[in-house]
Amino acid sequence: MDLQGEDLTDAVVASFDGSLEPRTKEVLSALVRHLHAFAREVHLTEDEYFLAIDFLTRTGQISTGTRQEFVLLADVLGLSMLTVGLGNPKTSGATESTVFGPFFVEGSPEVKNGDDLANGAPGVPCLVSGRVLNTHGEPIANARVETWQADEDGFYDVQKEGLAGPQNRGHLTTDADGNYSFWAVKPVAYPIPVDGPVGELLRAGGRGWMRPAHIHFMVTAPGYHRLITHVFENGDPYLNQDAVFGVKDSLVTDFTQHPDGHYSVTYDLVLAEESQ
Amino acid sequence: MDLQGEDLTDAVVASFDGSLEPRTKEVLSALVRHLHAFAREVHLTEDEYFLAIDFLTRTGQISTGTRQEFVLLADVLGLSMLTVGLGNPKTSGATESTVFGPFFVEGSPEVKNGDDLANGAPGVPCLVSGRVLNTHGEPIANARVETWQADEDGFYDVQKEGLAGPQNRGHLTTDADGNYSFWAVKPVAYPIPVDGPVGELLRAGGRGWMRPAHIHFMVTAPGYHRLITHVFENGDPYLNQDAVFGVKDSLVTDFTQHPDGHYSVTYDLVLAEESQ
Ligand SMILES: [Fe+2]
Ligand SMILES: [Fe+2]
Repeated sequence: MDLQGEDLTDAVVASFDGSLEPRTKEVLSALVRHLHAFAREVHLTEDEYFLAIDFLTRTGQISTGTRQEFVLLADVLGLSMLTVGLGNPKTSGATESTVFGPFFVEGSPEVKNGDDLANGAPGVPCLVSGRVLNTHGEPIANARVETWQADEDGFYDVQKEGLAGPQNRGHLTTDADGNYSFWAVKPVAYPIPVDGPVGELLRAGGRGWMRPAHIHFMVTAPGYHRLITHVFENGDPYLNQDAVFGVKDSLVTDFTQHPDGHYSVTYDLVLAEESQ
Repeated sequence: MDLQGEDLTDAVVASFDGSLEPRTKEVLSALVRHLHAFAREVHLTEDEYFLAIDFLTRTGQISTGTRQEFVLLADVLGLSMLTVGLGNPKTSGATESTVFGPFFVEGSPEVKNGDDLANGAPGVPCLVSGRVLNTHGEPIANARVETWQADEDGFYDVQKEGLAGPQNRGHLTTDADGNYSFWAVKPVAYPIPVDGPVGELLRAGGRGWMRPAHIHFMVTAPGYHRLITHVFENGDPYLNQDAVFGVKDSLVTDFTQHPDGHYSVTYDLVLAEESQ
């Protein structure tokens, strides 16, 4: 009884001594110590405590099957990129990882190489292609390449009402030479959604909310680490001020405009072997 | 670009440099540093990251106007008591504070001294009385005393369906001598709600979920600090294992049973002057 200060923290940490799994105890004990250290350092007020309770509650409540505001919150606080970095140590020669983002949805359409994924989305056509390779430069056949991206207005399909079907979203399988290719619209820099709690946070924090133009990829193949990444457009003005801190130099590449107006981009996606 | 490790943390902290209020920058910078330090210390995995995202989302979504799962989460992590301690430094002679808890609701019935607040709730009648005083022992007239508590089954009114009106909940005004009194049912030890995310956490953590019997008070009067506290029952077996770490020795008192079976408890609530 009468727990205060460090004694309180020690008691809460000790309360997890009977955790069913050692990892649960390890993670929750550390969480409590860091959470308490934070509150103590800033001398958190009761008003701020209730503001945080309300903020977190609304962050959960605005989330749906197609909007994940807690992922967005983790993104803007850099926690997503930190976790990506911890979980994906650099493997020599493999494509680097970046944030998953809040706009992935399960059950995207299965498409074939060369198909058009735009499905009526506004924007300039863009042919996206490349190969899936291992770190020895050998092609990986039958790799699953999933992609999703925003349209010319900066919106993902799941942010728009009344669409007949998915836009700029799908998954395909690489051919025998590891090739993937699909049409979509050329991505543009877009604002992350700021009509919810995360928007309030960014405005209060005097922060921007733009992301440089990018295409999302998630690539899997048996025997290889799953790769979650983006391909960014060289020259985008927001490359150095990504709202979610996701840019890596190695993921920036040229998008080429052709005489008829359409764009193309080629980027090889290199998977790390599971043994690496 | 290519932000990793401490550089990433520094960049996220710096992103709040333009905060509209200095306090916003102070709190968010500290939050980011401690959050990143936590993730780094435990080497947070991507699976754990998504588990946390899902946990927090569901914690928001199960919350309603009458259930606040994030308050409950803060309670079981000791953050609520820590904040209470930071915001209410001990004032000599004043009643100590404890957690607000998740079961307060706005708009409780206004009652008069001596009224019965049970309103049909199951339990043994209990007369609760005392005085509201300042730290010089002088009565405070017209103080607002708000109270709420669980019934004999361990449930607050807001946890029960189909009630005609509030039970064991109300607010009154002290008389000229600072007296307050009301009837309710004798409180019992009760489990905090474990049918939601917080319950999952407690089970995984091998923790209990009981709280020792208590009556909630919130007392306000012009010129005094608001007091949010409980009165606990002496002898309760859970006094040393409160699931939310809220017990203070000075808040434990005797409940007296009378020949006809009813209980009574008397406890003076002492407010600290605002200048203190
Ligand atoms: Fe994106
Ligand atoms: Fe309670």
